[in-house]
Amino acid sequence: MMKQARTLLSRSLCDQSKSLFDGASTLRGFASWSTGSGFSGKEAAKPSGRVFAPYAIFKGKAALSVEPVLPTFTEIDSGNLRLDRRGSLMMTFMPASGERKYDWEKKQKFALSPTEVGSLISMGSKDSSEFFHDPSMKSSNAGQVRKSLSIKPHADGSGYFISLGVINSILKTNDRIVVPVTTAEFTVMKTAFSFVLPHLMGWDRLTDQDGTGTQRTTSHGNTDPQQLEQEWDK
Amino acid sequence: MMKQARTLLSRSLCDQSKSLFDGASTLRGFASWSTGSGFSGKEAAKPSGRVFAPYAIFKGKAALSVEPVLPTFTEIDSGNLRLDRRGSLMMTFMPASGERKYDWEKKQKFALSPTEVGSLISMGSKDSSEFFHDPSMKSSNAGQVRKSLSIKPHADGSGYFISLGVINSILKTNDRIVVPVTTAEFTVMKTAFSFVLPHLMGWDRLTDQDGTGTQRTTSHGNTDPQQLEQEWDK
Amino acid sequence: MMKQARTLLSRSLCDQSKSLFDGASTLRGFASWSTGSGFSGKEAAKPSGRVFAPYAIFKGKAALSVEPVLPTFTEIDSGNLRLDRRGSLMMTFMPASGERKYDWEKKQKFALSPTEVGSLISMGSKDSSEFFHDPSMKSSNAGQVRKSLSIKPHADGSGYFISLGVINSILKTNDRIVVPVTTAEFTVMKTAFSFVLPHLMGWDRLTDQDGTGTQRTTSHGNTDPQQLEQEWDK
Amino acid sequence: MMKQARTLLSRSLCDQSKSLFDGASTLRGFASWSTGSGFSGKEAAKPSGRVFAPYAIFKGKAALSVEPVLPTFTEIDSGNLRLDRRGSLMMTFMPASGERKYDWEKKQKFALSPTEVGSLISMGSKDSSEFFHDPSMKSSNAGQVRKSLSIKPHADGSGYFISLGVINSILKTNDRIVVPVTTAEFTVMKTAFSFVLPHLMGWDRLTDQDGTGTQRTTSHGNTDPQQLEQEWDK
Repeated sequence: MMKQARTLLSRSLCDQSKSLFDGASTLRGFASWSTGSGFSGKEAAKPSGRVFAPYAIFKGKAALSVEPVLPTFTEIDSGNLRLDRRGSLMMTFMPASGERKYDWEKKQKFALSPTEVGSLISMGSKDSSEFFHDPSMKSSNAGQVRKSLSIKPHADGSGYFISLGVINSILKTNDRIVVPVTTAEFTVMKTAFSFVLPHLMGWDRLTDQDGTGTQRTTSHGNTDPQQLEQEWDK
Repeated sequence: MMKQARTLLSRSLCDQSKSLFDGASTLRGFASWSTGSGFSGKEAAKPSGRVFAPYAIFKGKAALSVEPVLPTFTEIDSGNLRLDRRGSLMMTFMPASGERKYDWEKKQKFALSPTEVGSLISMGSKDSSEFFHDPSMKSSNAGQVRKSLSIKPHADGSGYFISLGVINSILKTNDRIVVPVTTAEFTVMKTAFSFVLPHLMGWDRLTDQDGTGTQRTTSHGNTDPQQLEQEWDK
Repeated sequence: MMKQARTLLSRSLCDQSKSLFDGASTLRGFASWSTGSGFSGKEAAKPSGRVFAPYAIFKGKAALSVEPVLPTFTEIDSGNLRLDRRGSLMMTFMPASGERKYDWEKKQKFALSPTEVGSLISMGSKDSSEFFHDPSMKSSNAGQVRKSLSIKPHADGSGYFISLGVINSILKTNDRIVVPVTTAEFTVMKTAFSFVLPHLMGWDRLTDQDGTGTQRTTSHGNTDPQQLEQEWDK
Repeated sequence: MMKQARTLLSRSLCDQSKSLFDGASTLRGFASWSTGSGFSGKEAAKPSGRVFAPYAIFKGKAALSVEPVLPTFTEIDSGNLRLDRRGSLMMTFMPASGERKYDWEKKQKFALSPTEVGSLISMGSKDSSEFFHDPSMKSSNAGQVRKSLSIKPHADGSGYFISLGVINSILKTNDRIVVPVTTAEFTVMKTAFSFVLPHLMGWDRLTDQDGTGTQRTTSHGNTDPQQLEQEWDK
């Protein structure tokens, strides 16, 4: 698929020129948005403080930025924690307002849940996905405002169109921002999303412990007694 | 497979509404169960203590929660450790007792071993798996009580049915709890399980060492002498 | 594909002999180059200092060495950081000057961006890729000097040819260094690149935080309120 | 492929019973061997000391144990390190000497190099691989003693036969130890090997640094100046 590769390449080249020409300022912009995005105070309680590292894709008609929002935990007792809110991947769309300029005022956001992330990373080169969010769901205002994120493959399999639609039946507005992403850019997203997913679920906390847990167990039967205990405990 | 995607989506939407409507309380429930599940005292010897972050899936007739149970180690001499008990992934099933209510009393557990995890993460969209556990295996009581975990694909490839059956020939009971999971949810499980597997095996301990191991080796022949030594040492 | 496997094996064997016969000195060489390659002063501010661990492949006519160049961050305010420059994977090519000798003076470098890494790790066994870099792009000197990295599959699917071409229209030079890599070596690269990619993006910084982020959230509606807030905040 | 799954299951069940019946003692055995295998003194310089966590597979006629051997580094100057010896995955084979008994005296070892690990993790369900090691290669004793590790798929795709052959033309011995592994067990190996590979290469050292590397860079042209510099520096 040399042809595909060249296409992809030329794209990534021009994307690169865009992102690098005004990358500094734009990333600064993205970062400034994300300042408000979901690192709780405690989360920031570390020497290097908050870190803003959005993965940004700049295209002719719009830009897309993605960055993780970490989960939060509740202390349930003597220093033990329970996952309180799962993390998410915040996608920020911004329409172009001119040559390599993007309109901050018209940005739209969509927070992918872990399950929606699972849906995205399981997509094949010909698959589509669509996610719907309604802030008022199950309330009397249900349906007044709806967001839908759509991921559709290019006809030639060289990438996807990622578009965010926002319909506001009160303001009578219907916005849609579309960003074409190459297979290479989508692979970066899938790889980074797969890396981040266990962290959004809080599972990195379960496994990076230094304790040794040196407790004896004597084996009898075909299954570890303690695990059996757990399995059979009510 | 737009249709599949939409189906999957509508499902994940309603799941999401469920999980989020009573998510807080239910997760608290899951956490309270897991309090007893396999973090040894030593394991908990750290500032943030135990962390409870079950991955929970809420469906109409039942709920499924999964979380890692870390391995334990035995001190064999001067500060050296040997893996004593491999970790596992504890799956907890709970039947629904009403609209968005689940019956804690009727929960059933199944602890996936690392090898069973390997079997699950190698499953294709059309594959099935079934695991059997018998706490009394090889004893005179063998077969009296048997648990079987079954994973079967949806006919349209849009996900799997995960069901846990428990047959107790003494109490003459035969319970089965079935939870349908979407491809997205199964992908979350596969991704998180792959992340956790090396930790269940204790291999994260082997590799996160800060020592520099700066020992000279002079190369002669086609293979590193030390490795050769190891290979040929008896 | 026993045949393929044997081929691959014999190759990796002779590669191994090469790399191990003069491995020490050559790796030293590679390391000495990389001394200048992109670990900023701050980055080195740790007990064990800088670590040089290029992945080197030695073949008959040339050698290829790859190692990550970490991203840099800018402090934006009270201890908060913003990704300033994404990391890259620096590939260094070196032509052979004799039996197991390589000409340091004629080395050529190519820095893969995260997106180019995404393109590489998404390649199938029959895919090709080509990347172009021009240091003077968009300047009056554009096109005077061009570098192109090409990855082409072996006819029998047993690996790839990775070649770096450098055309200098001023010096009237046209260099090309080609290194054949086996499927095994390419898999090592894909696996290591996938591991490193989130680090090049700075996403490991977002997720390895120790804070507990224990903030209460009360759920209403179908989506976490804080995430909604973020999604709907302008 | 329900049938495959059941087969796999029954196997993994009986394997499990084996490994758990005498697991404690045997793992102790494996650990005691590995005491001598490649954690350098410096490497052990940490509170929890060495950690022994072999992944062991016990079958009727033989057992296989695998565990990582970490790389070593050389201090090249003021606290900087250079990879000196790549790590490996040490495979230890042991023939059965009776019902759930294994003959320690007859164990044979084979150390997989990073490239050989890459070959293994890239294997499809129908692929084969074979690796040859000769400690005396390129010496006058070349060929006197040869080790070959062979991985061959089961006819029904339900797993692989992993066998280690050792031919000693001096002692006139020709040993071969064969261990059948299920797809599940091989998936555990592939997943754990993929996790470990970057560590064998020393790349975890490059990326787990805490430094902030906050150095200013001003962008001009289409590529980051510092990376260009590196790319074009000679």
